[in-house]
Amino acid sequence: MMEKTPGSVTMEKIVSLSQRRGFIFPSSEIYGGLSSCWDYGPLGVELKRNVKQAWWRDIVQGRDDMVGLDASILMHPQTWAASGHLEQFADPLVECKQCHQRWRSDEVADNSCPSCGGELTEPHLFNLMFKTFMGPVEEDANVVYLRPETAQGIFVNFQNVLTTTRKRLPFGIAQVGKAFRNEITTGNFIFRSREFEQMEIEYFVRPETADKWFDYWLEERRKWYLNLGIRKENLRLRPHRDEELAHYAKKCYDIDYNFPMGWAELEGIANRGDYDLAQHAKHSGKEMTYFDEESGEHIVPYIIEPSAGVDRSVLAILCDAYDEEIAQGELRVVLHLHPTLAPYKVAVLPLSKKENLGKFAREVYDDLRQCWMVHYDDTQSIGRRYRRQDEVGTPYGVTIDFQSLEDNQITIRERDSMNQIRVPIATLKETLAAKLAGQDLFVLPEGGQIWKEEGT
Amino acid sequence: MMEKTPGSVTMEKIVSLSQRRGFIFPSSEIYGGLSSCWDYGPLGVELKRNVKQAWWRDIVQGRDDMVGLDASILMHPQTWAASGHLEQFADPLVECKQCHQRWRSDEVADNSCPSCGGELTEPHLFNLMFKTFMGPVEEDANVVYLRPETAQGIFVNFQNVLTTTRKRLPFGIAQVGKAFRNEITTGNFIFRSREFEQMEIEYFVRPETADKWFDYWLEERRKWYLNLGIRKENLRLRPHRDEELAHYAKKCYDIDYNFPMGWAELEGIANRGDYDLAQHAKHSGKEMTYFDEESGEHIVPYIIEPSAGVDRSVLAILCDAYDEEIAQGELRVVLHLHPTLAPYKVAVLPLSKKENLGKFAREVYDDLRQCWMVHYDDTQSIGRRYRRQDEVGTPYGVTIDFQSLEDNQITIRERDSMNQIRVPIATLKETLAAKLAGQDLFVLPEGGQIWKEEGT
Repeated sequence: MMEKTPGSVTMEKIVSLSQRRGFIFPSSEIYGGLSSCWDYGPLGVELKRNVKQAWWRDIVQGRDDMVGLDASILMHPQTWAASGHLEQFADPLVECKQCHQRWRSDEVADNSCPSCGGELTEPHLFNLMFKTFMGPVEEDANVVYLRPETAQGIFVNFQNVLTTTRKRLPFGIAQVGKAFRNEITTGNFIFRSREFEQMEIEYFVRPETADKWFDYWLEERRKWYLNLGIRKENLRLRPHRDEELAHYAKKCYDIDYNFPMGWAELEGIANRGDYDLAQHAKHSGKEMTYFDEESGEHIVPYIIEPSAGVDRSVLAILCDAYDEEIAQGELRVVLHLHPTLAPYKVAVLPLSKKENLGKFAREVYDDLRQCWMVHYDDTQSIGRRYRRQDEVGTPYGVTIDFQSLEDNQITIRERDSMNQIRVPIATLKETLAAKLAGQDLFVLPEGGQIWKEEGT
Repeated sequence: MMEKTPGSVTMEKIVSLSQRRGFIFPSSEIYGGLSSCWDYGPLGVELKRNVKQAWWRDIVQGRDDMVGLDASILMHPQTWAASGHLEQFADPLVECKQCHQRWRSDEVADNSCPSCGGELTEPHLFNLMFKTFMGPVEEDANVVYLRPETAQGIFVNFQNVLTTTRKRLPFGIAQVGKAFRNEITTGNFIFRSREFEQMEIEYFVRPETADKWFDYWLEERRKWYLNLGIRKENLRLRPHRDEELAHYAKKCYDIDYNFPMGWAELEGIANRGDYDLAQHAKHSGKEMTYFDEESGEHIVPYIIEPSAGVDRSVLAILCDAYDEEIAQGELRVVLHLHPTLAPYKVAVLPLSKKENLGKFAREVYDDLRQCWMVHYDDTQSIGRRYRRQDEVGTPYGVTIDFQSLEDNQITIRERDSMNQIRVPIATLKETLAAKLAGQDLFVLPEGGQIWKEEGT
């Protein structure tokens, strides 16, 4: 038995766990990886799906004032002229006159190349949009860009959505999708990558109510993370200083998370004013207004934008859930994931591989997976199997032993408390459903009993 | 009252309905659209989500022998050397020597430009992958491609998945995601676009069992479409002729759908043999084998690939569900969508906007939407509201009238039959749940009654 000292969460531990257990792999790893792109493995894809599903359910399906959209990644290039991205979405770069490597000028301390010591050029602007050519001819007329944000797909569809849904102000359009930024400096695992996924709301309001709705969304979005189990002390609100406001923003707050590398943005909430609709009206020549039937006026709504990163949310959730402790003399690594987010809700664990036990356990498994993502594991000792499930955040284990064959009772083991309760199989589903919904079962089902996990 | 003659489904009708009701819009429409890219509107995004969700539930979450993956769109360029895409994923193009327009050589009948009549060059190969540059320098070393298929993201992760999940043959890895092809000829609405979404399974099997699993998946996938309500007579299986087989395929069948423009591929099922794993092993220098514990041998599995198009599925589902009929002397357009796929499952329709009726209807609405996507509509006549819901495929309407306030009964109206049943409100949820699950309620709840919809 190896004893270790439980430590705090580090990025190295999260990266290692992610790769070891199939949450996240480096992209194209067999070819040495692709700088700052990542692939979600079998557990990661379920975790990420659960995050997006929770957002869609809460933001789109659960609200009267919101509809969804899924715009394409390739958009008409005029979009980026109107949005300001062609001109302003750029970093200043310097190039080494000797070795021709390029650097972000704000990251080079003096005027010599960090690689070879050569002299550097004056800074020039480098646009962060990925560009490609549509159609068979590689010429300027056919340049298109991979969208650097999902927001513009919503703005250009403003009238389409208004016409087809007949929504009244205030209302929002929400979208989940990939965006691409050719960042010069990437890093911190999936925190800043060149291909990433956004969950964006564009909420259209009467201009005079913009401040009120800004405050509303700031609080709504903060609560959303808290409701998914993120610890209060790891979230903070940070107003942007005037000089860091984006060109389109009247006001912006970040919801920061206390990552292992420090506080960093999880979500930005901006008052974009009428900038986007006015710009697209100007560049397209199309009407981008809302007709107010009461006053008979055409209004250009203001837009409040809560813009969250899916990958950053996944990273924050992993970091926040990660814990090490000594249990029964061994180091226990556990992800205290909220049941809504956990890839598996339940693991079914027969005590042995013996045939009659296996058959019984399979029946339980087949029954439970009608309701939830359930994992079946009958290899190695029960203690090791508990630890494997702890490490990937499975909230409940269901253990089936030889006694179960006789008394039709099975054991539910809780990931967080390591408490075990024994319940009649007829009550298993409802007991798990109640527990997964956050109802703590102080009242055991008839015939149930509770005890603390012992050495394994 | 305008009478029209009911006709059959055409692509024009589907495109028009899609745009009019917010299923699908041309991308960047305010800028004249972007050739062959499409945006899913508020109803389309829900329909598409339902298709992907049904696939994920049936293919990944409902099976023991399958895990999910979500690989990045940008991959290491070596991937495309190994897969054969760099060399072979190309169309022969000719260029007009006079006006420099380019054409696919198999689509030009004689040697003169269809546009200006000029002379054409000899055909040369044009690669269909979108290319872009990663990092700040636009040079050959930094070229990356947008993946033209999701499959390769699975192959390069074969060992990662094997190690982290300890799966045994046969098992599959499934993925849903965007892919991009710079097609010369696009069209037929969302059937062939440059940006599209795939649902792909790569199923790894012992080589000697490949034929058996090929047949298995052909039948499984055909059944999947049938289970989602696609009519049997609109599906066919078509074996590829030897000369049309892709370079990696030993055998391939298409599942074709009878679209308005004719039979065309919905899904391809291919036996890829050991081509992909062998190629990636060769190009990466990494082991891409499966260790068989029983025989002690390292095996290169064969791969059976059922590869479906999400957008094509959506199009087939819309075409298959579309119907016109004369009802009560008027043309009724109805989408007979399977309840699993319908964007809204239920519409709540108070007979009038009067306050007490509205309050009652809102309570019903708030209750039902805990379970399903529900639409609330209290504008215009009840007949027009029924037609609006028919047109977007909402299976059930719940009508609340003044009598409801007194007897606590409400009317459920069926989209397909236009039958109406009146049930006590206490039984509403369970009645709807049973109906949505496909159980026809010949036994009415106590106190219920049934009648046929009359003129409105």
